[in-house]
Amino acid sequence: MTLPNLNHYDSIQLTPEGQLKHFLTIEGLHEALLNEILDTAESFVDMSAQQVKKVPLLRGKTVANLFFEASTRTLSTFELAAKRLSADVLNLNISTSSTSKGETLKDTLMTLRAMHCDMFVVRHSASGAAHFIAEHVTPDVAVINAGDGRHAHPTQAMLDMLTIRQHKGDFSKLKVAIVGDILHSRVARSQIHALRILGAEEIRVIAPQTLLPRHIEAMGVKVFNEMSRGLRDVDVVIMLRLQKERMQTALLPSESEFYKLFGLTEAKLAYAKPDAIIMHPGPINRGVEIESSVADGPRSVILQQVTNGIAVRMAVMSMAMSGQLKQHQLRSEAAGA
Amino acid sequence: MTLPNLNHYDSIQLTPEGQLKHFLTIEGLHEALLNEILDTAESFVDMSAQQVKKVPLLRGKTVANLFFEASTRTLSTFELAAKRLSADVLNLNISTSSTSKGETLKDTLMTLRAMHCDMFVVRHSASGAAHFIAEHVTPDVAVINAGDGRHAHPTQAMLDMLTIRQHKGDFSKLKVAIVGDILHSRVARSQIHALRILGAEEIRVIAPQTLLPRHIEAMGVKVFNEMSRGLRDVDVVIMLRLQKERMQTALLPSESEFYKLFGLTEAKLAYAKPDAIIMHPGPINRGVEIESSVADGPRSVILQQVTNGIAVRMAVMSMAMSGQLKQHQLRSEAAGA
Amino acid sequence: MTLPNLNHYDSIQLTPEGQLKHFLTIEGLHEALLNEILDTAESFVDMSAQQVKKVPLLRGKTVANLFFEASTRTLSTFELAAKRLSADVLNLNISTSSTSKGETLKDTLMTLRAMHCDMFVVRHSASGAAHFIAEHVTPDVAVINAGDGRHAHPTQAMLDMLTIRQHKGDFSKLKVAIVGDILHSRVARSQIHALRILGAEEIRVIAPQTLLPRHIEAMGVKVFNEMSRGLRDVDVVIMLRLQKERMQTALLPSESEFYKLFGLTEAKLAYAKPDAIIMHPGPINRGVEIESSVADGPRSVILQQVTNGIAVRMAVMSMAMSGQLKQHQLRSEAAGA
Repeated sequence: MTLPNLNHYDSIQLTPEGQLKHFLTIEGLHEALLNEILDTAESFVDMSAQQVKKVPLLRGKTVANLFFEASTRTLSTFELAAKRLSADVLNLNISTSSTSKGETLKDTLMTLRAMHCDMFVVRHSASGAAHFIAEHVTPDVAVINAGDGRHAHPTQAMLDMLTIRQHKGDFSKLKVAIVGDILHSRVARSQIHALRILGAEEIRVIAPQTLLPRHIEAMGVKVFNEMSRGLRDVDVVIMLRLQKERMQTALLPSESEFYKLFGLTEAKLAYAKPDAIIMHPGPINRGVEIESSVADGPRSVILQQVTNGIAVRMAVMSMAMSGQLKQHQLRSEAAGA
Repeated sequence: MTLPNLNHYDSIQLTPEGQLKHFLTIEGLHEALLNEILDTAESFVDMSAQQVKKVPLLRGKTVANLFFEASTRTLSTFELAAKRLSADVLNLNISTSSTSKGETLKDTLMTLRAMHCDMFVVRHSASGAAHFIAEHVTPDVAVINAGDGRHAHPTQAMLDMLTIRQHKGDFSKLKVAIVGDILHSRVARSQIHALRILGAEEIRVIAPQTLLPRHIEAMGVKVFNEMSRGLRDVDVVIMLRLQKERMQTALLPSESEFYKLFGLTEAKLAYAKPDAIIMHPGPINRGVEIESSVADGPRSVILQQVTNGIAVRMAVMSMAMSGQLKQHQLRSEAAGA
Repeated sequence: MTLPNLNHYDSIQLTPEGQLKHFLTIEGLHEALLNEILDTAESFVDMSAQQVKKVPLLRGKTVANLFFEASTRTLSTFELAAKRLSADVLNLNISTSSTSKGETLKDTLMTLRAMHCDMFVVRHSASGAAHFIAEHVTPDVAVINAGDGRHAHPTQAMLDMLTIRQHKGDFSKLKVAIVGDILHSRVARSQIHALRILGAEEIRVIAPQTLLPRHIEAMGVKVFNEMSRGLRDVDVVIMLRLQKERMQTALLPSESEFYKLFGLTEAKLAYAKPDAIIMHPGPINRGVEIESSVADGPRSVILQQVTNGIAVRMAVMSMAMSGQLKQHQLRSEAAGA
């Protein structure tokens, strides 16, 4: 896994004043901004417990969900988040739309911008797609990365951070283990960045050698190939989803072999701290990555992650829109002056 | 057709105070509750004639339409009903979503609940699906049955009752005939329950012997195998839809043979009372179940049924949501005490 | 191409007082009405530049998009226009709905009307489809033609007129050239009608002889078979979209041959006036109809056309709804008198 040279992300996704205007990756963001996202999300968690789960923050705005890669669940969370912010939502299944008529991606996006769409939520199988759009195609439309290739899935990582904070408070004392297919996982990469920025004491990855990217240690993580050692004394266990279609390649042992070595069972969980929490991005493959009694047990916070997912998306969408508006305003004033 | 043992439905779909909190079946409900549904629906019929067909009863609520069995028309009526109650609506084509990624149905539903969906509208080919969800999976999410296998289609039956009441007023003097494929019809079963509870004088079913469930008389209906006798002096004729794909089985004669014997023609209609009304759940197979001149004639109330369908769905959705809220409130108070 | 005999359109799409109640074709409309549409659209262009792009003109109304012919882009513009007017929107992919269950088109439409849909946006491959619905099926539902066969695409033509007016002001001094597949183009037909009614000085069509309808001169246009002569001194160049699937027929030379003769390049553009604007309905086939540097150049107004498309659709939808309401009101008063 070669990392795209995306060091200048911070300047792309932030206004000169440091406000979020796109949300493309966690890499390069400051701790204060991550905490602002978490605090804003927390206020939306509270709101969602109310009778009327709706705020007018994006009223009169249009959010276009551009899913070049299908994902019913992620699409639903962004759709609900946008509707609860009172936005108008346009779901575009891009694979069947006019790009198939020979139109270029750039033309499709410029057309949506001309329709006065205010925000693009982009999911794409190519690493860097959201970033490319934000930088080169439509910098004045807020772009939210909903997963790009193997690169990043920043809203997933932030909902995980919110869940950890709700249970553990301070990050500085935490040992966190990420387990499974690290090699293909954009989720793992975003989680590692977030945990480092928020100051987690120790970040571990546990995987067979074939499912680890080369030089992963350079990201500041400890590598383990065995659950017994890797889970020892951790506060948080984050399981990754195993894409079954990859099971056929030589990279992976059989499903049952993988489960035996890396599946999270009650027995293996005993290595972790007694109050460790269990996380998984969903959907779960029961009996492949995780034992049912663990997934449904008292230490599992998997459904809380789902709830936090809506809140984090509402937070990021409202913050990015606010940053874009501020920037448009400054630009208008500059033009008028 | 074996009937599922669903006698305890009333306790599942009602709060301890007898308020609706799910709407799964008509069986076991009291006449007063059916009349409350009809009265509430009538108020929405009036509202739909206004310029602004919208009330804020479900504002800030999220309704998820879970159609495991495709039905554009039924989905559209629930979608419109929810939107006119000001709810946010999420349409999920479940067959293509994450259940296909290996996720269990239960996990999908728990995930939607964690996203703070407040209501599930469920259509499923398995009898008892909506009931199972309401009892075992998500009892605190209002579940509306939009058709489950051969079991029930309660909103269809209630819109039929509303239509009958609008034309005939009192049920106690009415003879009602239900014609066609009784064996496979969830609509017929729900209609029979509703007509009995509302006190119809006589309920008839008219069908070839092969399309009648065994022991159907136990439901309190009179069985006829000929239109000439079955339609005699009835006030209401309810035609069922004939699923053409079943025509190939040995259960049914050819389409033209069926039409000759059981299709509703002007000639056969002469057996009914002169002011009998003609009903059909749609979509119509002209020339298979019903003659065009009858379907479009002055005694047909088929389009009025469609209009009432929106109103009944609005009624049931708002009543079930209100019942759920009351229950949540009581539970919070109990927890706080 | 035989022209359907649609001379009585004006009486169908207008109330007795001359208000729009459907929008089916531009043919037969008066200049004053076209100007009213353009003026109304202009006010929506201004509104779209505001923070909150939403007006309550269609609040409580239901707009059903009936696309018998798929078109993601056109559907999106009508969906956004309806939502920004605060309507509830129902998107129906008719090919997969109950018409496939044997229901007639008329029954589908009457059912949607019974659900209290207030407006149908109709796209159909058959010329005259929207007109047929407005005249014979649901005259009291506002029908907007979103493209019917080779006949008309009136909202596209009006957004083009708005774009021309924004750049050139007065139509009476303008020479306008329409280039490409005139034969199959409903867009070209609607543009020609609009330009004539608005008093354009000269309307030209430029195409190979095989792509021109017979007797096209009767529509009041000048015919050219060469770009060099046809583009001379024009103020506006309207390129048409080339349907690639027609490339295989004998009507057309190869793509590259077509581009060489009729593609809009910088070189050919030199024949037009120095301040000529370039239009295209999109999506663009770069290198087939138009050179990239022309499409993206300073004289291209293609993205402005997209923006105007939302505004024109909002204008036509609100005007037609207002005409229908006036008519319903008069009818109720007449019935009450």
